[in-house]
Amino acid sequence: WQILDQIPGRATGAYSHSQGIKGLRDTIAAGIEARDGYPADPNDIFLTDGASPAVHMMMQLLISSEQDGILCPIPQYPLYSASIALHGGTLVPYFLDEASGWGLETSELKKQLEDARSKGINPRALVVINPGNPTGQVLAEDNQRQIVEFCKQEGLVLLADEVYQENVYVPDKEFHSFKKVSRSMGYGEKDISLISFQSVSKGYYGECGKRGGYMEVTGISPDVREQIYKVASVNLCSNISGQILASLVMSPPKVGDESYELYCAEKDGILSSLARRAKTLEDALNNLEGVTCNRAEGAMYLFPRINLPQKAIKAAEAANTAPDAFYCRRLLNATGIVVVPGSGFGQVPGTWHFRCTILPQEDKIPAIVTRLTDFHKSFMDEFRN
Amino acid sequence: WQILDQIPGRATGAYSHSQGIKGLRDTIAAGIEARDGYPADPNDIFLTDGASPAVHMMMQLLISSEQDGILCPIPQYPLYSASIALHGGTLVPYFLDEASGWGLETSELKKQLEDARSKGINPRALVVINPGNPTGQVLAEDNQRQIVEFCKQEGLVLLADEVYQENVYVPDKEFHSFKKVSRSMGYGEKDISLISFQSVSKGYYGECGKRGGYMEVTGISPDVREQIYKVASVNLCSNISGQILASLVMSPPKVGDESYELYCAEKDGILSSLARRAKTLEDALNNLEGVTCNRAEGAMYLFPRINLPQKAIKAAEAANTAPDAFYCRRLLNATGIVVVPGSGFGQVPGTWHFRCTILPQEDKIPAIVTRLTDFHKSFMDEFRN
Repeated sequence: WQILDQIPGRATGAYSHSQGIKGLRDTIAAGIEARDGYPADPNDIFLTDGASPAVHMMMQLLISSEQDGILCPIPQYPLYSASIALHGGTLVPYFLDEASGWGLETSELKKQLEDARSKGINPRALVVINPGNPTGQVLAEDNQRQIVEFCKQEGLVLLADEVYQENVYVPDKEFHSFKKVSRSMGYGEKDISLISFQSVSKGYYGECGKRGGYMEVTGISPDVREQIYKVASVNLCSNISGQILASLVMSPPKVGDESYELYCAEKDGILSSLARRAKTLEDALNNLEGVTCNRAEGAMYLFPRINLPQKAIKAAEAANTAPDAFYCRRLLNATGIVVVPGSGFGQVPGTWHFRCTILPQEDKIPAIVTRLTDFHKSFMDEFRN
Repeated sequence: WQILDQIPGRATGAYSHSQGIKGLRDTIAAGIEARDGYPADPNDIFLTDGASPAVHMMMQLLISSEQDGILCPIPQYPLYSASIALHGGTLVPYFLDEASGWGLETSELKKQLEDARSKGINPRALVVINPGNPTGQVLAEDNQRQIVEFCKQEGLVLLADEVYQENVYVPDKEFHSFKKVSRSMGYGEKDISLISFQSVSKGYYGECGKRGGYMEVTGISPDVREQIYKVASVNLCSNISGQILASLVMSPPKVGDESYELYCAEKDGILSSLARRAKTLEDALNNLEGVTCNRAEGAMYLFPRINLPQKAIKAAEAANTAPDAFYCRRLLNATGIVVVPGSGFGQVPGTWHFRCTILPQEDKIPAIVTRLTDFHKSFMDEFRN
């Protein structure tokens, strides 16, 4: 009833304001404030059908020709590369450092930025995915400060993909929003343009079929914001059920609420199970011959590196397939286990990876580990140099 | 339970196939077959968050530069103009003929097509909105045959906006899908490229906040269809509740079903009320000094022409406003009645219109008519030449 009271007409069947129902945006802004300890404005919130349409809207706004560049992490889940391609811009890659747990070095950002500029590309924005997809790392706060400083100095819009903000599994890491980090550095609306994306598809809720999400748009001039609103209004509004879920995700039960204990138990149960699954799979992967795997500090993925024997690489070439795709297809055919080749996300040339989710039911993980281990052994036996 | 049986996992919380859940597409294809009497293929159906994203997908596909033209009716509700502008193409206008009840003359199509070609524009598609928005006309089947023939001869993709297919209010008109018309002419997959858009936001259901819709894509080569699928997959899928509603819209209760009588009574009740409202408003508008209004044969709108006195046009110029916008704002301020100026839809230069929905509750229409009539009289008294 509280939610219906926020909706004009007290029903979910009508179009809403193109940014989303005002009362739900109020709730989301209050949730952001509670999370960050800094003010949030409901007029900065644009509710969308999942995070993807929000990313497209920003790419549409930022890209006017192929001279406009967007700095994107490699590896990177392919929403960004696809959206940049669709809008006719240029992806400026920066490589995450596998050796330091998929660290994000500002020296690498600087190098790629200058390299792009020397080619006549005008980098306009930096995409950071934190926690990372497909790499699963959680940025340290100090690293985030360096990134904010870099964006401020270089005049880049910071596009912060923060859809895995609830998915952190290791005690030594914590999620900090880029909004909180930049405000804690004393940077406000006039200092940095920052867009944060959030979704109902991840976290401990995972309601991806509902297509709910939002972006918080800060440090953007009123005339540019007017253009974002105009683009949003072309599609009328995002679906109302998804809007409601987005408000619930940012306003979970609180101490004293009737459902608070049950909520905590379910949330902790889901997240601690995900943490155990991540650790079990990480250990299993690191036990495989020629495989090394960084921690899944957050998100829902492991991204192990696999040192493929020359014979396997040759066999892949003969089959006209990327070596990692060759391995993944063999794994699928032998075991039914689906993983995604690293070549779909980008990787340092000459290295091979695959992305493995931590999402199978926990009681099925041991059998998956056995099947994966047996397959890997026989694959290596077949192709070992 | 029947619907849940069609969804893998029997739940609505997960991503679906990027074209939409296969079982729901089967249902929709069967509904199209039942409507048209010609086969429909579930693989031709792309479920979307309302019809708008489907229109964007097709514009993205059809437009690669400003040399690519899209023939659009004038007046036209601004989804098409906005989408063409966003994708960097050129809108090639063709005028509907107000004197013949917003008729669509192929001579006008031919003239505008040739005019565009002479300017170096390559028209790639023709948009037809039937029943019309904002004009409310329903095309005669013979007229539709001429349009199909024209598209076939000129190699144009026919983009058929058929979201008002259930909204026909006059006994002498009937909705015929362009698919049915083209198949009845003996034209199949190889003869004409035809995209039909449908939505859960209109009809007698009007569940616009749910964002459900689909497009049926026929006469498109497999490699082009593959590109459509690729673009659809970038956004993962449309919301599952909207997908379910789209299947229900195309599969209403049938004779013998428990709810059939209730369904018929509600549907007929809503549609006959809309028809009465349309007629009442049409008559009221035609009774105003200097106003002429075509029939609302279908859709949800009337688009009266208003012959504004020179004095009013001068006052609008002094206020730096289009004359129709000047009239509409005056109406809003005086009565609280919202109508949309014709200049938002396009109109023959020098003519002025506004769009008026037929959606207010039926029992409120008489009071609206009184307020509108009183306002109009005082407006004309103030500005009469």
